[in-house]
Amino acid sequence: MLRPSSRAKREAILAAAERQFLAEGYDAVTMDSIAAESGVAKQTLYRHVGSKRALFLDLVTTQTMSAGRRAGVDHSHIDADTDVRAALCTRMETQLATVLTPQLLRLRRLVIGEQGRFPELAAALHAHGPRRAIEALAEMLREIDAHGLLTVPDPETAATQLNWLVMGEPVNAAMLLGDGAVASLAQQREHVARAVDVFLAGAAAGGSAANAR
Amino acid sequence: MLRPSSRAKREAILAAAERQFLAEGYDAVTMDSIAAESGVAKQTLYRHVGSKRALFLDLVTTQTMSAGRRAGVDHSHIDADTDVRAALCTRMETQLATVLTPQLLRLRRLVIGEQGRFPELAAALHAHGPRRAIEALAEMLREIDAHGLLTVPDPETAATQLNWLVMGEPVNAAMLLGDGAVASLAQQREHVARAVDVFLAGAAAGGSAANAR
Repeated sequence: MLRPSSRAKREAILAAAERQFLAEGYDAVTMDSIAAESGVAKQTLYRHVGSKRALFLDLVTTQTMSAGRRAGVDHSHIDADTDVRAALCTRMETQLATVLTPQLLRLRRLVIGEQGRFPELAAALHAHGPRRAIEALAEMLREIDAHGLLTVPDPETAATQLNWLVMGEPVNAAMLLGDGAVASLAQQREHVARAVDVFLAGAAAGGSAANAR
Repeated sequence: MLRPSSRAKREAILAAAERQFLAEGYDAVTMDSIAAESGVAKQTLYRHVGSKRALFLDLVTTQTMSAGRRAGVDHSHIDADTDVRAALCTRMETQLATVLTPQLLRLRRLVIGEQGRFPELAAALHAHGPRRAIEALAEMLREIDAHGLLTVPDPETAATQLNWLVMGEPVNAAMLLGDGAVASLAQQREHVARAVDVFLAGAAAGGSAANAR
């Protein structure tokens, strides 16, 4: 357990690192510039984070996991009365809106651009971001199956399909066309609804990894 | 029409630019280093390409359009006897395998990483890559509809859904986990088949933008 002063220092370091990495790219940032902005001694900075590379990894992991918590990926409340369509729409709307925040989009672009030099960073974003989200969605589909609301013989594949039906177009557009290409929340809701409809129609027809009961 | 010697020079310039940009990133490359590797005078290089920025844009556009041609996005041969499932599988297998080549993946990572500084590059990749592929797929679905093989009331949305059912997971994994995460062709075929099955099952159930007749 960090003492409060240590935790405050760590937060100041991460805030400075995030601002600088996202604004200037990896190479332009130095341990000196982070120490200066966060108001900690360089010695303290090294003691807290080890190295610039370790700090960048820490930042990616922290931001991605915190986005996952904001998207509520670990909290589905399924019971026998759950409206499956509404529950899936809500989950996917929250996940989409979270991933489409400018800060996370910039981090994702930076990490993808540096994948060749820093594969462990991109792997951390993958593990704590899309991988974690799909696993949590698979768990939700397992609960939906367990309550007899839908037959999902292959929850992992079904979750992967639903995830990319929703995330593919808007995330790709945001990566390549910038933050200005992010749709309004109303448009995101409409997009999610159509994706969930295809998923459930596929399920109803028995052609997907989920089948309606 | 360029004279053959001009065309040869242009090809040498693009080849050198591609190798250097992908190996070293945008900033490390100079007009001097490209002139040296391609064996043309610097004056000739400037006459051909204008600037480093224009050359990078030219490279992205050329590579992305050429990938589109390799993926055969403009050639679908639909008639009344077409096996829709087989035709969609073939088209999507070719597109997926083309996008997952290491050279194109590296270009895509580089362009995404530089989206903030060079939005026109990423916009060019988007227009000639995923956007063009989805439009061509929508055109294919229109032909499938016209031949009475499937009802597709909204070809654009249906094409977007099928595109990301196929491309979402493998392209995202390749972006973040590197070229080593690219599945074998046999695995890609299996993945495409499952995506097309969901798409057609959704179509059959009438829940998607395509409906079976």
